[in-house]
Amino acid sequence: MITPYKLASREFQQKNTVVTVGSAGFGGKSIPVIAGPCAIESYEQLYQAGVSAKAAGAAMLRGGAYKPRTSPYSFQGLEKKGLEIIKTVGRELALPVISEVTDPRNVELMAEHVDMLQIGTRNMQNFVLLKEVALSKKPVLLKRGLAATIEEWLMAAEYILSSGNNQIVLCERGIRTYESYTRNTLDLTVVPIIKHLSHLPIIVDPSHGTGSWRWVSPMSKAAIAAGADGLLIEMHQNPEEALSDGPQSLTPENFAQLMVDLSSLTTVLGRSLTNKIK
Amino acid sequence: MITPYKLASREFQQKNTVVTVGSAGFGGKSIPVIAGPCAIESYEQLYQAGVSAKAAGAAMLRGGAYKPRTSPYSFQGLEKKGLEIIKTVGRELALPVISEVTDPRNVELMAEHVDMLQIGTRNMQNFVLLKEVALSKKPVLLKRGLAATIEEWLMAAEYILSSGNNQIVLCERGIRTYESYTRNTLDLTVVPIIKHLSHLPIIVDPSHGTGSWRWVSPMSKAAIAAGADGLLIEMHQNPEEALSDGPQSLTPENFAQLMVDLSSLTTVLGRSLTNKIK
Amino acid sequence: MITPYKLASREFQQKNTVVTVGSAGFGGKSIPVIAGPCAIESYEQLYQAGVSAKAAGAAMLRGGAYKPRTSPYSFQGLEKKGLEIIKTVGRELALPVISEVTDPRNVELMAEHVDMLQIGTRNMQNFVLLKEVALSKKPVLLKRGLAATIEEWLMAAEYILSSGNNQIVLCERGIRTYESYTRNTLDLTVVPIIKHLSHLPIIVDPSHGTGSWRWVSPMSKAAIAAGADGLLIEMHQNPEEALSDGPQSLTPENFAQLMVDLSSLTTVLGRSLTNKIK
Amino acid sequence: MITPYKLASREFQQKNTVVTVGSAGFGGKSIPVIAGPCAIESYEQLYQAGVSAKAAGAAMLRGGAYKPRTSPYSFQGLEKKGLEIIKTVGRELALPVISEVTDPRNVELMAEHVDMLQIGTRNMQNFVLLKEVALSKKPVLLKRGLAATIEEWLMAAEYILSSGNNQIVLCERGIRTYESYTRNTLDLTVVPIIKHLSHLPIIVDPSHGTGSWRWVSPMSKAAIAAGADGLLIEMHQNPEEALSDGPQSLTPENFAQLMVDLSSLTTVLGRSLTNKIK
Repeated sequence: MITPYKLASREFQQKNTVVTVGSAGFGGKSIPVIAGPCAIESYEQLYQAGVSAKAAGAAMLRGGAYKPRTSPYSFQGLEKKGLEIIKTVGRELALPVISEVTDPRNVELMAEHVDMLQIGTRNMQNFVLLKEVALSKKPVLLKRGLAATIEEWLMAAEYILSSGNNQIVLCERGIRTYESYTRNTLDLTVVPIIKHLSHLPIIVDPSHGTGSWRWVSPMSKAAIAAGADGLLIEMHQNPEEALSDGPQSLTPENFAQLMVDLSSLTTVLGRSLTNKIK
Repeated sequence: MITPYKLASREFQQKNTVVTVGSAGFGGKSIPVIAGPCAIESYEQLYQAGVSAKAAGAAMLRGGAYKPRTSPYSFQGLEKKGLEIIKTVGRELALPVISEVTDPRNVELMAEHVDMLQIGTRNMQNFVLLKEVALSKKPVLLKRGLAATIEEWLMAAEYILSSGNNQIVLCERGIRTYESYTRNTLDLTVVPIIKHLSHLPIIVDPSHGTGSWRWVSPMSKAAIAAGADGLLIEMHQNPEEALSDGPQSLTPENFAQLMVDLSSLTTVLGRSLTNKIK
Repeated sequence: MITPYKLASREFQQKNTVVTVGSAGFGGKSIPVIAGPCAIESYEQLYQAGVSAKAAGAAMLRGGAYKPRTSPYSFQGLEKKGLEIIKTVGRELALPVISEVTDPRNVELMAEHVDMLQIGTRNMQNFVLLKEVALSKKPVLLKRGLAATIEEWLMAAEYILSSGNNQIVLCERGIRTYESYTRNTLDLTVVPIIKHLSHLPIIVDPSHGTGSWRWVSPMSKAAIAAGADGLLIEMHQNPEEALSDGPQSLTPENFAQLMVDLSSLTTVLGRSLTNKIK
Repeated sequence: MITPYKLASREFQQKNTVVTVGSAGFGGKSIPVIAGPCAIESYEQLYQAGVSAKAAGAAMLRGGAYKPRTSPYSFQGLEKKGLEIIKTVGRELALPVISEVTDPRNVELMAEHVDMLQIGTRNMQNFVLLKEVALSKKPVLLKRGLAATIEEWLMAAEYILSSGNNQIVLCERGIRTYESYTRNTLDLTVVPIIKHLSHLPIIVDPSHGTGSWRWVSPMSKAAIAAGADGLLIEMHQNPEEALSDGPQSLTPENFAQLMVDLSSLTTVLGRSLTNKIK
C-alpha cells in the first residue's frame, strides 16, 4: 500500500517509537495514565488533583490553562497564571505535566512551563500551530480531529515529523457521528490500526470519547484490551463544581478504583501500569 | 429519565434477562462465543467449521442460509438447503445453531431448523418481520441497524417484547460513519450503555464491526473488557475462498488463539467462557 | 467507470426512463408533485386533502395505510381500511394515488388499491420486499435508505429492475448525519448525480428531508433548481392535529402558495408543473 | 427558544446585516458571486482569472496565498508573494479580493492586501484566529467547519461579533458524512435555517461542497433557489493543470454560462446578480 504519509509509517520505521516524558514511556511495554482536571481552576484544586492522581498511580498530570470553548461566554481558562500553577504543582509532586497549546505565539511560553504539549481536537489541522510545536522539540500529544480520518490524522503527525520532531503520541478522543446519546463515538478500532500503520504510540481519552463519567471505566479497560499505549482521563475533586467538563470527570475514588482494575488487566495482557499504586 | 421504551428498560426489570440457547446463557456470568462462516456453502464446509468452532470453545455455530446482499448478482445463500445443513450439523456436533431470517413468510420454517433467529442490520426496523419473529417465541439475536440510534434499537426490541417474546440478545455490529478505513465503526460504548439502560444482554460482532480479520482479535478483547455478554465471530476454513465476507473472517487457527486469550481475560474480569477449550 | 449496477446505469440505457402514473410522467419535461398527509386518518381527512392538493396543482395524492413507526405504541395506520379509503378518494377526484408497502404478503392487496407502491426508507434494502414489488409490475417509488450510499440505492433499484420491473422513481428524503437541528440532512447533490449515473427519474421529499414545514418551501425550490423530476410533499388540513408527522406538514394554504412559486420557477428552467393550478 | 448565541441571533437584530465589500453587498436584494482559483499560482494566472470572472459578472475575485493542505508535501501557496499578486490584480481590474488567513500573526499583513478575510473550514473553531480577525475590523467570510453543527457555527460567529466585528458572511461548504461519492455533502437546508435564526448573510460554496465541477452549476442554482445571499465558486483557466482543487473548478466558459442561467433564475426569485454580465 502506498500511503501519503512517509515518516509516520511503519514502513519507514519498523520499531515502535517510545516517547519519554519523565518516568512515562509511551509506546513501550508499560502503560502511562495521564489524569487531572479539564481546566486549572486554582493552585489548591490542581494540587489536590495531583496528589490524588499520583497516589492512584497516574504517571502524568493534565490541566488546561488556555481552554478552547464553543462559546465566547464560557470560562476560557486561567491562561498564563494557569501555566505557572501547573508548573509549580508538577515540580512539587514530581509529576510530569501536560497542557493544551492553542496559539502559535504561545508555544515558547508553554514549552517553558509544561513537559508535553497537547494539540486539541479542534487544532489537529491547524498546520501553523503544528509546525510551531514541532520547532519546540517538546513531546506532543496529538488528538484526533473531531471528524478526522485516520489518514488525515497521520498526515497531521507527518507535519510535525517533517518539521523535525518525532516525539509524538496520538490520542483517540471520539469522533462525531449521528449517535447523540454519547458526546462522541469512541472509535477504539483505530488502536490496532494505528499500531499496524505507524510506529507512533497511541493512547485513548475515554472522557471526551464518551462524555460521561459513567462510561469512562469500562471504556478505559476496553482501550487497554485493544492495545492502547496509555490513557488520558479527566478527574476532578468535585465534578459537580467543575468549571468545565464536570459530567465526564471521575472522582478521585472512582479513578483509584479504575487504576486497581487496570493493574490486573494489564498483567494478563503482558503489560503493566507505569507507576505503582501507592 | 422517561424513555419511549418500557418493557426493554432497566426500570421495568432490574434483574438481567438471561437468554438461554442450549448450554449458552447470554446475560449471565459466563460468556458464550458464536462462531462460523458468513454463508453456508456446503455440508462439508459447515461441518468442518463446526468442528473447529467447538474445539476452540465456541458455544454456538452460525451460518447464513438466506443472505441479504447489496447486489442482486451476488451469492444469495443456499436457502432451504442451507437450513437443512445447519440443522444437521448442529445436531451432529451438539452445538446450538443460529441463522438470519429475512422474510416474515419464512419464520416458521426457520424456527424448525435453528435454535436462535437472527435479525440482520438491514431489518432492524422491519417491523413486520419483528412481529412475526416475536410470535415464534424463539430466542432472537437483534443486530443494531447500520445507522440506528441506541433508542431506535431498544424500540425495535420493544416491538418484539410487546409482541410477547422476551428472549432477545442485542448485537452491536458497527455503525456507519465518515471513516472509510474500516467497513463500519464499532461503537463499543454501547455495551455499558445498554447494560445501564436495559436488562437485555448485549454481544458484539467485531467481524462486521471492523470489516477485516486483522482487527477482530483486539476488538473482541476490547468488547469483553467493556462488559459484553458474548461475541459473534466470522470464521472460515479458508477465508480467501469464502463466498461472502472472506476478508473479515478468522482462520480456525486465529480463532483458537483468540479463545485462549479470551479465557485468561475473562478470568481477570470475574467471568468465564461458556464452553471449555478442548 | 465500472459500476456494480447494470440495468440502472446510463450506460445501459442512454434515454431517460419516463414513469407514467395517470397524467403524471416522472422523468420527462413536466414535473409532477405528489401531496397528501403522512397517514390516512379518515375518509373525510383524505378527501379534503385530495381536494386541496388537486386544486393547487398536485398530480398525485399520497397517504399511508401501513405506517412503519419507531415505537410499537405509536399509531400504526388504518391498514386495509386505509387502502379502501385512498382507492375511493383517488377515483372520486381522478387523482392517482400512492401508499407505502411494508409487507411482502401485502403487495398484491396494495397493488389492487393504489397506482404506485412506495418503498420506504427503512425498507430500501428489504430485498424480499423489493423482489415481491417487482413482480407486481406496478410503478414503484424507491426512497433512499436513511444511511444508504448512492451506490447501494442504485443497487436496490437493480434488484427491482433485474426482477423485471423498470417503472422505478427514486426519491431522496434526507440522510442521517451528525447535524441534529434538522431531522435529516437533505442531500440535493444526488439529484444531478443520479441523472448522470442513471436513466431513472429522481424526485425529492423535503418534508422528511428537513423535518419541519418551515424549510419545505425553500428546499422544494432548491430541489427543482437542482434538476429534480418531481416532489413528494406532506400536507395536512390541520398539521397540529395530525396523527403523524404534523410538524413537517404544510397547510393547504402554504402548499398552494408553494405551487404558485414553483410554477414560475419551472418555467425559467425550461420545464413546467404537470397539472395546471386551478 | 433560548440560544447560546446572542449577538448573532435574529432576536438581537431583526434586520438583515448587509456586509458591503466594494460593490458587493451580501445580505441585501442583490446577489454577489465570488469566483477565482483555489490557489494563486502566478500574476498571469490570477489576472486572466480576474478578467474572466469580471466579464462573466462576478463581484469579487478569490485566490489562496496561504493554503492549508492535508499533506505537508503538497503545494502550500505563494504566501506573501501571492498576497501582492492578488492586491495588484484586484486594483487593476477594480474587483474586491478575498483570501484565506490561517495564522493570527498574519492578520495585519492580510488586511493590508485583501478586502475580505476568509476563515477556512479547518479554522472555524480556531478561536485565537477568530479574535484576531475580529480586531482587524475587516469583513470576514466564515466557512462552516467540516463537521460543525449550526449552533457551533453561529457560536464561532459570536466570537467575532463579541470581539467587535459584525461584518460577517457565513459560507456553507459541505459537511462530512458517510457518503463518499461526493467530497462533502452540501447541506443547503442551512440556508433558510440561518436566515431564520440569524441576521447574518449566508452564501454557498458548491465547489468544495460537492468536490466536482460537474455538480457545481446545478447546486449553484439550488443554493440561490434556497435563498442564499451569494456564491463562492472555484474557476480556473485550465482546471487540469491547477496546482490545487482542479477537479472541482469550472472553466471560464462554464462559469460564464452558469452566470447567464443564474441571471434569469434570480429574476424570477425577485433578486438579481450584483454585477452585470458584460
